[in-house]
Amino acid sequence: DVAKDVDESLIEIFLSEVDNIQIQKNLRELTKVPHMATTAGDEQTVQFMLKRWQDPETGLDEAWREEYMVYLSFPDPKNPNKVTVVSPSDAVLYTAREKEKTYTPDQDDPDVVQPYAAYSPKGHPKGKLVYANQGTPSDYQLLNETTDLRGTIAITRYGGAGRAAKAINAAPYGVIGVLVYTDPLDINDGLMSDVNETYPHSWYMPPSGVERGSFSSRYGDMLTPYLAAKEETYRIPVEDITGIPPIPIQPIGFEDAYKLICELGGKAAPAAWQGAFKCTYNFGGPGFKLTSAFNNSDVKLDIFNHEEVKNSSNVMGVIRGSVEPDRYVIYGNHRDSWVHGAIDPSSGTSVMLELSRVLGKMVKQGKWRPRRSIIFGSWGAEEFGLIGSAEYTEQYFTKLSERTVAYINVDIAVFANATLRASGMPSVQNVIFTAAKQVNAPGLDSTSVYDNWVRYSNRTSPVHGTIPRVGYLSGAGSDYAAFVHYLGITSMDITYTYDRSKTNARIYPAYHTAYDTFDYASKFIDPGFVSHQAIARTAGNVLIRLADSLVLPLNCSDYAESLEDYLNTAVTLYQQQLKKMNISMEPLKRAVASFRSAAAHLDQVIRTSDLANETPLKVRRINDQLMLLDRAFLDPLAFPDKYAYRHVIWASSSAGKATFPGLADAYANAESSGQSSDWDKVHYHLSVLSQAIEGAAHTLVDVI
Amino acid sequence: DVAKDVDESLIEIFLSEVDNIQIQKNLRELTKVPHMATTAGDEQTVQFMLKRWQDPETGLDEAWREEYMVYLSFPDPKNPNKVTVVSPSDAVLYTAREKEKTYTPDQDDPDVVQPYAAYSPKGHPKGKLVYANQGTPSDYQLLNETTDLRGTIAITRYGGAGRAAKAINAAPYGVIGVLVYTDPLDINDGLMSDVNETYPHSWYMPPSGVERGSFSSRYGDMLTPYLAAKEETYRIPVEDITGIPPIPIQPIGFEDAYKLICELGGKAAPAAWQGAFKCTYNFGGPGFKLTSAFNNSDVKLDIFNHEEVKNSSNVMGVIRGSVEPDRYVIYGNHRDSWVHGAIDPSSGTSVMLELSRVLGKMVKQGKWRPRRSIIFGSWGAEEFGLIGSAEYTEQYFTKLSERTVAYINVDIAVFANATLRASGMPSVQNVIFTAAKQVNAPGLDSTSVYDNWVRYSNRTSPVHGTIPRVGYLSGAGSDYAAFVHYLGITSMDITYTYDRSKTNARIYPAYHTAYDTFDYASKFIDPGFVSHQAIARTAGNVLIRLADSLVLPLNCSDYAESLEDYLNTAVTLYQQQLKKMNISMEPLKRAVASFRSAAAHLDQVIRTSDLANETPLKVRRINDQLMLLDRAFLDPLAFPDKYAYRHVIWASSSAGKATFPGLADAYANAESSGQSSDWDKVHYHLSVLSQAIEGAAHTLVDVI
Ligand SMILES: [Ca+2]
Ligand SMILES: [Ca+2]
Ligand SMILES: [Zn+2]
Ligand SMILES: [Zn+2]
Ligand SMILES: [Zn+2]
Ligand SMILES: [Zn+2]
Repeated sequence: DVAKDVDESLIEIFLSEVDNIQIQKNLRELTKVPHMATTAGDEQTVQFMLKRWQDPETGLDEAWREEYMVYLSFPDPKNPNKVTVVSPSDAVLYTAREKEKTYTPDQDDPDVVQPYAAYSPKGHPKGKLVYANQGTPSDYQLLNETTDLRGTIAITRYGGAGRAAKAINAAPYGVIGVLVYTDPLDINDGLMSDVNETYPHSWYMPPSGVERGSFSSRYGDMLTPYLAAKEETYRIPVEDITGIPPIPIQPIGFEDAYKLICELGGKAAPAAWQGAFKCTYNFGGPGFKLTSAFNNSDVKLDIFNHEEVKNSSNVMGVIRGSVEPDRYVIYGNHRDSWVHGAIDPSSGTSVMLELSRVLGKMVKQGKWRPRRSIIFGSWGAEEFGLIGSAEYTEQYFTKLSERTVAYINVDIAVFANATLRASGMPSVQNVIFTAAKQVNAPGLDSTSVYDNWVRYSNRTSPVHGTIPRVGYLSGAGSDYAAFVHYLGITSMDITYTYDRSKTNARIYPAYHTAYDTFDYASKFIDPGFVSHQAIARTAGNVLIRLADSLVLPLNCSDYAESLEDYLNTAVTLYQQQLKKMNISMEPLKRAVASFRSAAAHLDQVIRTSDLANETPLKVRRINDQLMLLDRAFLDPLAFPDKYAYRHVIWASSSAGKATFPGLADAYANAESSGQSSDWDKVHYHLSVLSQAIEGAAHTLVDVI
Repeated sequence: DVAKDVDESLIEIFLSEVDNIQIQKNLRELTKVPHMATTAGDEQTVQFMLKRWQDPETGLDEAWREEYMVYLSFPDPKNPNKVTVVSPSDAVLYTAREKEKTYTPDQDDPDVVQPYAAYSPKGHPKGKLVYANQGTPSDYQLLNETTDLRGTIAITRYGGAGRAAKAINAAPYGVIGVLVYTDPLDINDGLMSDVNETYPHSWYMPPSGVERGSFSSRYGDMLTPYLAAKEETYRIPVEDITGIPPIPIQPIGFEDAYKLICELGGKAAPAAWQGAFKCTYNFGGPGFKLTSAFNNSDVKLDIFNHEEVKNSSNVMGVIRGSVEPDRYVIYGNHRDSWVHGAIDPSSGTSVMLELSRVLGKMVKQGKWRPRRSIIFGSWGAEEFGLIGSAEYTEQYFTKLSERTVAYINVDIAVFANATLRASGMPSVQNVIFTAAKQVNAPGLDSTSVYDNWVRYSNRTSPVHGTIPRVGYLSGAGSDYAAFVHYLGITSMDITYTYDRSKTNARIYPAYHTAYDTFDYASKFIDPGFVSHQAIARTAGNVLIRLADSLVLPLNCSDYAESLEDYLNTAVTLYQQQLKKMNISMEPLKRAVASFRSAAAHLDQVIRTSDLANETPLKVRRINDQLMLLDRAFLDPLAFPDKYAYRHVIWASSSAGKATFPGLADAYANAESSGQSSDWDKVHYHLSVLSQAIEGAAHTLVDVI
């Protein structure tokens, strides 16, 4: 039926059918073996996804795999990377662990990859050790004031700067190698002992745990920018790759970092640089202190990583829409992990499989078919830089741009079991709220996910009063990045997360380690899988509403509210100085006002129309306006230095201001350089931004 | 009615109401005074358009003006540009005409702008004269082999290279000033005498006639690339402008050129360089021959042009669509001329006013309202570089991209009265044919415009047999450029033109001169205005069909045929060599094959569906596929060196091959340099092209 709206009774059925035990079974299956991208374990998960999505009773209309040949980086199993302390006479005084310690059989699996920094160059740097805090530009700058960094090895802790940045920032000072570890202060609330404090006794990271990761600054396959990485696709020369470490870098556990840092000489580092080790963190002489057994010794890295172009698969599945098959709601998560990846990403995959099982069954039984098409994506090689999803958006750029209503990302479904966390474009706030109000909060009988959420994280909206705070997707933390920044598709990222009054952990402590296992997830993250279930219900409810609503549940007036927030901040921060530079903010103010009034008008049209009884072309027209709203904010030339960032409102920014990212960055740059050509760039970006917002307003305004 | 299709009886009414006398009246009104962009005469035409489009009985639903502040270039009325021959003792031996000769009162109008080269820098270069043929790179190269060009003034004839290029190509050789004129060989079939051969005795250019023009290589306002030129928009520094003459340049009449060229010394120029003057065209010594009264004298240019940011207006008008108001068919032409502009552009404007009168009347009388919205655009400042239309597409980029079904451009409606000429994307061929079959050829009682056309210009299509040849819109010759190349909107350009067996004129001889007047048009171009009428009928018929058809009359299989032509040419020209360079053409072949099969399938869906009786969402879906087809070929990064060229199939090319432009240019470049990095660029562009064609195929293929 062309005019049919969401069926609330169907949503009730959906919610009741989502089963925590099924999710648990999914997770057990997905985490049997390590499934790093393109390994045999990865192929096992491909087959598992295909089997499930092709199941004649609970599968989708169709499911298939799509392959890309992508540039990856691996350690050499035969020549493991090594970190040693070497005396002046070349005696090895200390060797860091090559593998994480075994607490359950999972860590003994021969396919557990050695901790390494993907895309670190190979090499054998040897030099005096220094401590460089988080490896930010200002960290190295400060360190360099008292310490000659030429020829040194820097040890840094995770946080503050991107992984690759810790090496990229170091190289200009002459640093020749970098170590990175996770300080117990940042991940374990200070706890350090595996006798009773850390996993397997708690969720905290054991002393030998090491966070693996991609040490690349940009997303997508690095050899094929803007082109899908097919066999005969042009590949840039490897030497032209930017944004990866120019010097070797290796991650180690805090048990080894403890040994190294507490032996360092030199002056004491500032208070902000101190971590949880029971010693003073010194800068390093450079090198170890006189009283140390390591005195006068070097730290040596032996890195044997190699790069390789390998086949990575996405697994795709689809439920055809009945009324508007040419409109897509996409739901996705990556499939590849670093090791067993129980939480990252298999918690999300288990949730996706459960909600696709419930929906698939309704379809197979003939009880339901969505108004719009639903596409499921199980992305490959996310851990190396969101590669599978990025290549997908490159290959299908046109049709995804033309037809996609929204993208839902659920990667890590459950970081912890306290509260919902959601991020997205402002227009999705409302549909997430609606869905969250209909789901019981795990472990709380008569409280909804929404009511629980608003207690943990809220803000005051001039229109809605006190509501949960929905974050923005300005980074590239998971597979939503290409959808948000490259395609301009309205997106959201949903998860269950911490009670911040109980932990300061940067992220759940087993993240990217060999301890992110079924055992860990089921004992310490979500016993009973009830938070997983709540996410499956909430995300599935959002998915059904996006697929079935007559009028798309995307609220453009909420978007206006966010733009006004950004504008107010920009005016407060910049207007006075810009006036002095003869740069007017009036066009930006006018653009935001145009947007607000167009949004108000469109909302009124929706409110006052009897859309179910008018021509179906009217609701289609309104829905097209809502669908294309985020596309209107794209400008492929707005950020010439940021690969695949085209959305002028949500691009990443280094200025750290809650306002328009390109404006904030350009302003910070001009303020620091004082050059008039940099103030010109501020003016230029203001024009780009104003025109984009006016363009978005045109998308919402009466169509003629 | 949601399922209503084109009403053929309404088209018959339209055709019969289109009145040649009305067109004649329009032209008389539009050409009363010169109406160069932003002058008082231009404002008069703005008011006239508004009055007509706001007429309560024959106007549109709404009409308004839109202003842009754009960068223009003018001569100084108080210091007219001068071209003189100056003896070594500084005596002025000869002065070129400052104004064209008067034959009718039109030429005496004080608002006739002196002939000049818009965007030529001011300056007073003086040097020995040389003859540089058409001023192409190879012309200057050849000339430079025998003649030291440093400090010379080059005289060139129109044709062969763009206007600005004649100066840009010259500067590297040390040339300090350039003259340009129209050789009678190129415009007058060799005739030269105003006693009886040229206007007012015929359509040929009088000896003093001068083609004015914009000497800028790119389109749109030069100070505001990609941004609409509003008051507070960021403007690039004037010094950053590229693509304009680096040295002064000035156009002159052939009567003056005759005097200069026939006195030149040096060796005789090659046969291909010879024109119609009754003398041998020599290279120049440099300078004049010994036997000349000008011997040892210099040519001096005194150029007083100045640049100015001025308000230019587009006049816009709209007829709201009844069923799909959110789909636009745009019909446009520029309004500004160089002088009276009877043919360029007022023939087109007269046609536009007549067809909008007939349509407006039907709307006002309640007899008709189109299914889709119709937008009329009367663009400003086209003569300076398609500025009005380009700024419009920059300002409304998003909504035009989202909603525009097609753009129809009729600039010069009648070059001559022999036959129709049409250019456009291949998908519009069929609707032009349908329309042309329904219109009588002017002056031929029982022959249609189509039947007449196919005699003058035809080709053999594997599917359709012998059909008229429709050209491609690969350049930026009129206001379709921004629609085609920047927005990827399916476009066409329609006109009546020459019998090429009767003239070799580059263009109609009064083009951009003070002789392009009502008198000229009505006596020599289209007495009785019957060719104007035929264009109004043909273009109006196309417009109605695009606006009213249930299924858009855009044929994607005809597009496939053109892609296959291009592919075959590319394979013939490049495959052997590319194989040697290890670059495969298979992805391109696969992409074209995918496109063909998707097109065939979509055509079959259209053929086998009873769309009038199915849900209106089905035809909307198919129409969206057809509408977005050209958008799918856009890649904003495909041509980094070509401003606002994004359509990978129709971009301009310098290689001169009937195949994919970026491939042809990259190949020519690699072949000439032989560098492996240039072969890499060929491979890169092949990947860009293949991905774009695959993307277009995805747009046509089943939507899921
Ligand atoms: Ca790629
Ligand atoms: Ca502009
Ligand atoms: Zn993840
Ligand atoms: Zn991860
Ligand atoms: Zn024109
Ligand atoms: Zn013109």
